[in-house]
Amino acid sequence: MNKGYCHIYTGNGKGKTTAAIGLIVRALGHNKKVVIIQFMKDDKNYGEFKYLHDKILFLQMGRNEFVNYENPEDIDIELAKKALIKAKEIIQSAKYDLVILDEINVAIMFSLIDEQAVMDIMKSKPESLELILTGRGATKKMMEIADLVTEMKEIKHYFSKGILGRKGVEY
Amino acid sequence: MNKGYCHIYTGNGKGKTTAAIGLIVRALGHNKKVVIIQFMKDDKNYGEFKYLHDKILFLQMGRNEFVNYENPEDIDIELAKKALIKAKEIIQSAKYDLVILDEINVAIMFSLIDEQAVMDIMKSKPESLELILTGRGATKKMMEIADLVTEMKEIKHYFSKGILGRKGVEY
Repeated sequence: MNKGYCHIYTGNGKGKTTAAIGLIVRALGHNKKVVIIQFMKDDKNYGEFKYLHDKILFLQMGRNEFVNYENPEDIDIELAKKALIKAKEIIQSAKYDLVILDEINVAIMFSLIDEQAVMDIMKSKPESLELILTGRGATKKMMEIADLVTEMKEIKHYFSKGILGRKGVEY
Repeated sequence: MNKGYCHIYTGNGKGKTTAAIGLIVRALGHNKKVVIIQFMKDDKNYGEFKYLHDKILFLQMGRNEFVNYENPEDIDIELAKKALIKAKEIIQSAKYDLVILDEINVAIMFSLIDEQAVMDIMKSKPESLELILTGRGATKKMMEIADLVTEMKEIKHYFSKGILGRKGVEY
């Protein structure tokens, strides 16, 4: 059995969640078992959800509202904590080859969940599991224990010209 | 019809091709028409090829050998030029919503194809087309005319520990 690694995709540029989705496709091409848990998201209209929800275990465990990061609501904290418990359960079941925790870095940055609890999951994951954490604001400590870290750095983005997210590209 | 943009994913970090693959999935979730042309690749064992080749137009237009960048062989130049002609034809057909030119930045960096020819394609693409260029070494001029540029910056990579590419993760 191959050793699995822990990846972090962070930074302010476009391409973090999409890179994770790309890894899902690559894994499916080799008949691997995949789960994605999305923190702070609940929107069935995302292209990746529409396309993958009947092919992998695809869990959206937030709600379809922006989290107020300065003063998150109780419901957001509760949902993120539930998502983390679910993540832990899934990871420890050792039934999957690839687990994506999408936007989990942001959930930590917004203080919805504890950095230490996530680090414990990273450290105690099954040997062969590939574990992917996405979202801006990954902490230094998390990056230290990850095996691979890519910073998606925004050089230029059409959002800065006032363009809004578009169906099939941003969601 | 939405306006389409030109994205570049470059840099030395992991996540460029996978981000493009993620965009494919997102587009498929919204029933969009997608093509990927891979420069300098010909390996049907890539997970993304195995999974997507019967769902989208998936063209691998290189050969399964590393290109010697200091002294590329005629066959590599010929294949890259053919891939570029094909890309132009596909883009100008205006039959697709999303076109990925995977590793095209590297093909330019290795002097297999001309930067100017690629810039002409970027500038003359159909209004609604989303065009994605991947690969390290994107040129400054190309980044200037692109609408979105993300640099995937390697902060840490297990390859530096001597780990080789693994099935279902790197290919």
